[in-house]
Amino acid sequence: MVAMQASGTLLERGLRSLVGAWRGIAGGGEGVPLSREGVLGPKDVDRLHGLFAECLEARGGEVSARARAAALGRLYLGLNDDGKRAFLQVLAKGFAADEPALDKAMTAVRGAAGDPVARQKAERRLRQALTPPRQKLLTQFTGLPQGVKFLVDMRADALRFRKETPELAIVDADLEDLFVAWFDVGFLELQRITWNSPAALLEKLIAYEAVHAIESWDDLRNRLDADRRCYAFFHPRMPLEPLIFVEVALVKGIAGNVQALLDQASPVMDPGEADTAIFYSISNTQTGLRGISFGNFLIKRVVDDLTRELPHLKQFSTLSPIPGFRKWLDETVAQGAPDLVTADAREKLREALGQRFSKGMLPGLLKDNAWADNAVLAEALKPVLLRLCARYLLTAQDRGKPRDPVARFHLSNGASVHRLNWLGDRSKNGFKQSAGTMVNYLYRLDDIDQNHERFVRDSTIAASGEVKRLADL
Amino acid sequence: MVAMQASGTLLERGLRSLVGAWRGIAGGGEGVPLSREGVLGPKDVDRLHGLFAECLEARGGEVSARARAAALGRLYLGLNDDGKRAFLQVLAKGFAADEPALDKAMTAVRGAAGDPVARQKAERRLRQALTPPRQKLLTQFTGLPQGVKFLVDMRADALRFRKETPELAIVDADLEDLFVAWFDVGFLELQRITWNSPAALLEKLIAYEAVHAIESWDDLRNRLDADRRCYAFFHPRMPLEPLIFVEVALVKGIAGNVQALLDQASPVMDPGEADTAIFYSISNTQTGLRGISFGNFLIKRVVDDLTRELPHLKQFSTLSPIPGFRKWLDETVAQGAPDLVTADAREKLREALGQRFSKGMLPGLLKDNAWADNAVLAEALKPVLLRLCARYLLTAQDRGKPRDPVARFHLSNGASVHRLNWLGDRSKNGFKQSAGTMVNYLYRLDDIDQNHERFVRDSTIAASGEVKRLADL
Amino acid sequence: MVAMQASGTLLERGLRSLVGAWRGIAGGGEGVPLSREGVLGPKDVDRLHGLFAECLEARGGEVSARARAAALGRLYLGLNDDGKRAFLQVLAKGFAADEPALDKAMTAVRGAAGDPVARQKAERRLRQALTPPRQKLLTQFTGLPQGVKFLVDMRADALRFRKETPELAIVDADLEDLFVAWFDVGFLELQRITWNSPAALLEKLIAYEAVHAIESWDDLRNRLDADRRCYAFFHPRMPLEPLIFVEVALVKGIAGNVQALLDQASPVMDPGEADTAIFYSISNTQTGLRGISFGNFLIKRVVDDLTRELPHLKQFSTLSPIPGFRKWLDETVAQGAPDLVTADAREKLREALGQRFSKGMLPGLLKDNAWADNAVLAEALKPVLLRLCARYLLTAQDRGKPRDPVARFHLSNGASVHRLNWLGDRSKNGFKQSAGTMVNYLYRLDDIDQNHERFVRDSTIAASGEVKRLADL
Amino acid sequence: MVAMQASGTLLERGLRSLVGAWRGIAGGGEGVPLSREGVLGPKDVDRLHGLFAECLEARGGEVSARARAAALGRLYLGLNDDGKRAFLQVLAKGFAADEPALDKAMTAVRGAAGDPVARQKAERRLRQALTPPRQKLLTQFTGLPQGVKFLVDMRADALRFRKETPELAIVDADLEDLFVAWFDVGFLELQRITWNSPAALLEKLIAYEAVHAIESWDDLRNRLDADRRCYAFFHPRMPLEPLIFVEVALVKGIAGNVQALLDQASPVMDPGEADTAIFYSISNTQTGLRGISFGNFLIKRVVDDLTRELPHLKQFSTLSPIPGFRKWLDETVAQGAPDLVTADAREKLREALGQRFSKGMLPGLLKDNAWADNAVLAEALKPVLLRLCARYLLTAQDRGKPRDPVARFHLSNGASVHRLNWLGDRSKNGFKQSAGTMVNYLYRLDDIDQNHERFVRDSTIAASGEVKRLADL
Repeated sequence: MVAMQASGTLLERGLRSLVGAWRGIAGGGEGVPLSREGVLGPKDVDRLHGLFAECLEARGGEVSARARAAALGRLYLGLNDDGKRAFLQVLAKGFAADEPALDKAMTAVRGAAGDPVARQKAERRLRQALTPPRQKLLTQFTGLPQGVKFLVDMRADALRFRKETPELAIVDADLEDLFVAWFDVGFLELQRITWNSPAALLEKLIAYEAVHAIESWDDLRNRLDADRRCYAFFHPRMPLEPLIFVEVALVKGIAGNVQALLDQASPVMDPGEADTAIFYSISNTQTGLRGISFGNFLIKRVVDDLTRELPHLKQFSTLSPIPGFRKWLDETVAQGAPDLVTADAREKLREALGQRFSKGMLPGLLKDNAWADNAVLAEALKPVLLRLCARYLLTAQDRGKPRDPVARFHLSNGASVHRLNWLGDRSKNGFKQSAGTMVNYLYRLDDIDQNHERFVRDSTIAASGEVKRLADL
Repeated sequence: MVAMQASGTLLERGLRSLVGAWRGIAGGGEGVPLSREGVLGPKDVDRLHGLFAECLEARGGEVSARARAAALGRLYLGLNDDGKRAFLQVLAKGFAADEPALDKAMTAVRGAAGDPVARQKAERRLRQALTPPRQKLLTQFTGLPQGVKFLVDMRADALRFRKETPELAIVDADLEDLFVAWFDVGFLELQRITWNSPAALLEKLIAYEAVHAIESWDDLRNRLDADRRCYAFFHPRMPLEPLIFVEVALVKGIAGNVQALLDQASPVMDPGEADTAIFYSISNTQTGLRGISFGNFLIKRVVDDLTRELPHLKQFSTLSPIPGFRKWLDETVAQGAPDLVTADAREKLREALGQRFSKGMLPGLLKDNAWADNAVLAEALKPVLLRLCARYLLTAQDRGKPRDPVARFHLSNGASVHRLNWLGDRSKNGFKQSAGTMVNYLYRLDDIDQNHERFVRDSTIAASGEVKRLADL
Repeated sequence: MVAMQASGTLLERGLRSLVGAWRGIAGGGEGVPLSREGVLGPKDVDRLHGLFAECLEARGGEVSARARAAALGRLYLGLNDDGKRAFLQVLAKGFAADEPALDKAMTAVRGAAGDPVARQKAERRLRQALTPPRQKLLTQFTGLPQGVKFLVDMRADALRFRKETPELAIVDADLEDLFVAWFDVGFLELQRITWNSPAALLEKLIAYEAVHAIESWDDLRNRLDADRRCYAFFHPRMPLEPLIFVEVALVKGIAGNVQALLDQASPVMDPGEADTAIFYSISNTQTGLRGISFGNFLIKRVVDDLTRELPHLKQFSTLSPIPGFRKWLDETVAQGAPDLVTADAREKLREALGQRFSKGMLPGLLKDNAWADNAVLAEALKPVLLRLCARYLLTAQDRGKPRDPVARFHLSNGASVHRLNWLGDRSKNGFKQSAGTMVNYLYRLDDIDQNHERFVRDSTIAASGEVKRLADL
Repeated sequence: MVAMQASGTLLERGLRSLVGAWRGIAGGGEGVPLSREGVLGPKDVDRLHGLFAECLEARGGEVSARARAAALGRLYLGLNDDGKRAFLQVLAKGFAADEPALDKAMTAVRGAAGDPVARQKAERRLRQALTPPRQKLLTQFTGLPQGVKFLVDMRADALRFRKETPELAIVDADLEDLFVAWFDVGFLELQRITWNSPAALLEKLIAYEAVHAIESWDDLRNRLDADRRCYAFFHPRMPLEPLIFVEVALVKGIAGNVQALLDQASPVMDPGEADTAIFYSISNTQTGLRGISFGNFLIKRVVDDLTRELPHLKQFSTLSPIPGFRKWLDETVAQGAPDLVTADAREKLREALGQRFSKGMLPGLLKDNAWADNAVLAEALKPVLLRLCARYLLTAQDRGKPRDPVARFHLSNGASVHRLNWLGDRSKNGFKQSAGTMVNYLYRLDDIDQNHERFVRDSTIAASGEVKRLADL
């Protein structure tokens, strides 16, 4: 069965139920005769503004107001994209902080200079004057059964519409401010996800996996087998909706090839015999939570949990893509820096190609991924690419931080660049992003704090001797 | 067994564990050699300030900072009152918003006048500049296992200390601001509490019941019997800690006597035969949540739940104390207004007393509660006191609102004053607060919104004809 | 990943762990050096017999004995089919009731004739003497983590091996006797299964569905949508293992076509608008529970549950295959009874075929299912086949009961034959078993008991007038 | 509130509901006009017999029959003791195995001698013929919401009535046979009970504790504190009803005094620092499960669970009463055996008493417990009583097994008599049963099997050297 898709029809239903709900709540009245087509016309917009205002004034009481807000929320769910955009615009255009009150409050803060207690009070009053009624209004949508998810999705809409409708930035910002308070990591629950988890939750892993796509339920079951672990953070008001999840493989020694890790035909290992936990995929799931990050807490909590369950684990490492490498590689190769290729590598390439090698040939050689299927050529390119990859990770910067987003994340968490894995990801995407190479970031508990400190203080990147040697700087 | 009470000893343990935890987290260092006696000395205060600052700077990373904050939280739990006060003072004195940054942000807001988009951005930046680091610091305590409860209790401490230490007002205010966001009613869970609930939760009902004390586990079991209901709101991060709870009796007709309701020897009724739900006790439990109210939502949700479970219920009413009546009565009687006693009542009193009655005798008659045991006298006083009680509820005001706090709560929720119950509470406390009288506030779903509106707009109090007639205005 | 399949390897592991477990339990000793190949040799069989005997004697105590039995159970799991068969033969050959004790007990029963109390005692002693030690031994396997499922699967093995190894009948019988006590319907739990159920449970629906195969996870999700219900019975010691499950569709009016019902593209209905619940699939899942039936209880409990959830439901009906119809039809047509085709039908067939029809043509016409795609021919065959189908259901018997197994089940539960559905199942299997026809059995609460009574007493089959008319008897 | 106690009234209700239920089930009919007084008259008995017979015949089907049995079960609950007795007598008098069928089946068994397969079949048929219809009838009561508990309580009734109504023995026996199958230890769930358990469960601990009475909810909370553990076995169909529970104290070294252990004022210990688990109370809760024992499994499972949770635990010991000691002591002292008192002890007693001691004085000295409060006298009696106590435990027998029931239980489980504790239980009951002495039975995992073996084989009692020396044999 499919959910009925004609938004007009759904909208009509939405309107009918809104009118009904409103009457139920308000004990009579004319309801909300909004237009039928899922697009809000000018009159509808005025009416909507009025309905929002009523919620804010809490006419009929707080309880009633929240029920009305919920009815408006259900209306929103029935709108098509144009309708949603118009809805959000109504929110964006009004319901801002009151300017005269704000001015007065600022004046009071300035007037309280020198008197700390008076100043504190004035600052607090200013803070209250600054809080836009819009935020209160948005908060009232939590009265919907899935209210928090509703608002997270609403922000995802706002982010999507922002390019064409820049005034929605304020709705985005207000929601972000609310989410910072609501999604504090102290409120989140770490849950292990297994094959015994609800299918309604598991299908979201399939939908949300962003690093190595889950191809089928069989693939998923394989990733939840006895020698695998999966953990996610949940918000207590968004059950069955993982906010971020990490997939872990329990192995012997640090794994370097993701296809081997995901091979459904490989035997299941006794987790008690594993000495290493490999974090091979971390996926943020909610576009609407952009800017609110908990990946570092997730890793820490999972390490704690695994250590308790499996005391024999000695190493915690990622097996990560290097998503910016290929682009940087193409640029670098195109620029043709003098030391791009060492003499040794040059010689090997000459042998592999059967002709003299010049660095100008590199762009052509790398253009497609055919080189990877040519064992001799691949072997000759290996030292060239690994050297460049190490350099990319250790030196390529963007505004003072590592250019590679995954590197930035793990290094900022206190991990170190541990090992490069030649052809560790032979998938199409693996070549497109990372030229087939993967990297292990190592989380050593004893070094995390110091690594983090140095990284924050002076952008020092912790790396193994092996990787430093590869970089050959 | 008793938990060990010598705070010195607990503090020492706290310190040892703090030092240990710190070392564990920070990978070495000298720890926190605070003084042993539970009182923080001047040097300790400096150190504490430094430790807070470190958490804020998130040296060693966010995860580490939160772990350190948790260690500080555990330290707090080991302090005696003087130590706690000093701890909170450290928080109150520093960690305010940065004044120059604030000034700059205010200037920017003023400068953006006329440009709505720029203004919005400037306002948001001002809001950020206004958020005191103290709030971020306090949020970090959520890393404790019972972090939210810890902060609620910390605010209860701050409220307790505020009289003698007014500068703690800012800590109180910062926590209140956080709680407004965290304890939004949309995040709370309504749970029914039964005799199958955990004893660790039930013992809190015994501890927290504020209206009609629960005297024993037997008394509690009686209040959770088949013809009783109990509901509470919970925060997902404070399990087993009811925030507010309501006790309900399922009866035939509106009940007027609380002792009869609580009588453990009375037979259990089949709830399917009840037509009325009596809310006979509503208790807020957390001092630290002062100012954050959800009583109206609780009533609404409980009415919904009961209606679903027991469709035969036709009436929802409270059986409430009138806690300000006795004080008002004493004042009123002392002033001796001319129409204090009607001619009819005067005649009855003459008969009961066997002598001529003058209103000057009232204070003496009412001084103790002996009149209640004298059936003839009580009968004669009944019309006098009920008339005054009805007037108290319908007319006595404090800053434009009903003087009686319970009346204020229910009337503001949209209930009406339905019936007075002569000698409905013969307990010591019943006489002390309410002169033995109780009142039913009726919640009629069809009237709630309108009652609320009128009450808010012009302080109109909804009341039954019977009560209005009693008031004889 | 695949579980490792080389039984030799698993067996070796099993043996190692068995030896280990035994030593752990028994505090030393030589362990169980059974042969390596998954097949038990003559010496192994002797040893196994000895190990069973030890468990029975409970040497080292009851706790120890049960742990040893569990170790033997784990061994069994590691055996290949030949090994399992040999294991069961060891059980079958020994551990019977003690003959002399039995004879003595029988003599005592006869001797107690006339003395009811003595007789009762003697009978009980005889019952005890009759209980084969084998049953006690089998019961000890419940000490395995999935002990009950282990035994159910062991009986499935015994049933599978019985053809070639008839002496296993006694193991089958002993397990059946145990299961009759353990799987009493009073011990089973009815659970609703939804898309929120564990994937580990849902995948079993896919595996076990016996009527209309579930083709994919999407198909399954469709069957668990808002207008569908699925219920199963579970044993408390076999979580995640449905014993029997039923799939229900909520519809308007009685549904007649199963492909329409299972169409993933059809819209989802609001269950509140449904007036009819269609039981379109009932599947027993455990071969090892053959002979222990709870289908009638399942239907009754599901009807109760649906009635409570959806009071608007007015009708409860199945949409069932007629699995024996095609075979009977072929036989009947081959025999060519005189009144096989009515004059009317004959005329229609003449028109459809463009030539004179004789009943001898029927076998040829029906041989493949091409007629169903020929609209004119199908229309002409319809009265012929429906008449025969009604006769099959109302008259075809096997040992005094309806020949059709599905009819037998529902009629014995008190349902009636309500409606035949022409081409209600156009699947390959639908034609093969039921000649494309489906039937609704109607469960009318008011008639169930009487229908059942009559069916049991004199095999009276309840049927609607419509079906009776179709049968044209 | 109290449940209404007038059985007449409840019975009337019961009858009304039975009649109603019956009509509901059976679709009409006259119902069950049993007498009103809770006592079943002769006519009622006939009717009851008929109703039972109907259930057995399953008229209207299995589902209907079970619903009728449930209605009869509800009737039983409304009867007074006389009514219950009469109800059980109806069951006892009829519903036995069919004698002719039984005789035939016995003949068949004899006739099958020499043909193992035929014999097996005949034996099974005999087993079926032997199963009294009464058992099937009793099983049908599981259809009640608390059906299993209902039957357990019914057996408790039967046991209670048996003395005066010996014919109920057969109902007792039939229920015991059913329970042996249903309460197999493999079906039971071990649960830890904490202060977070439902109050409805905890109040049962208070009610059922049989060794050291729980005096209040505070006493109970103390026994569930951080350094205490409580475990129970549950049947999946009897939730909130512990079948047997054990209370454990986590301590340093083997505890010898139960009052010290239960002292609510003693500090709570960090369980991580404990090296010893003391099982200080084991209570069977269900009279109706007499003869079905799982105490040894409970101990084993609890030891496993504690070992996993607290790997530092090194010793597992009981602190047990010696319930038969005082009686044996009085007998022994009265007989005045020659070596009752050693020369050393005699001398000490002379000093303590200030006069020459003769063993004839012992009965007088021990008559009340005043000696225990006389420190000098107690010290002089100590060697006498401990020597006798050790002899009691090591030598006093009843039918070849230790006379003391607690000793019998633990020694049969493989424990050893480890240490006697002088005045380890100074409670009134402690003196009455055990003359104030307590004993530790030690469970050493390495010795359990061997101890059990020897105890079973030749009644060898494992004991420490210390206890053997005390016995001075």
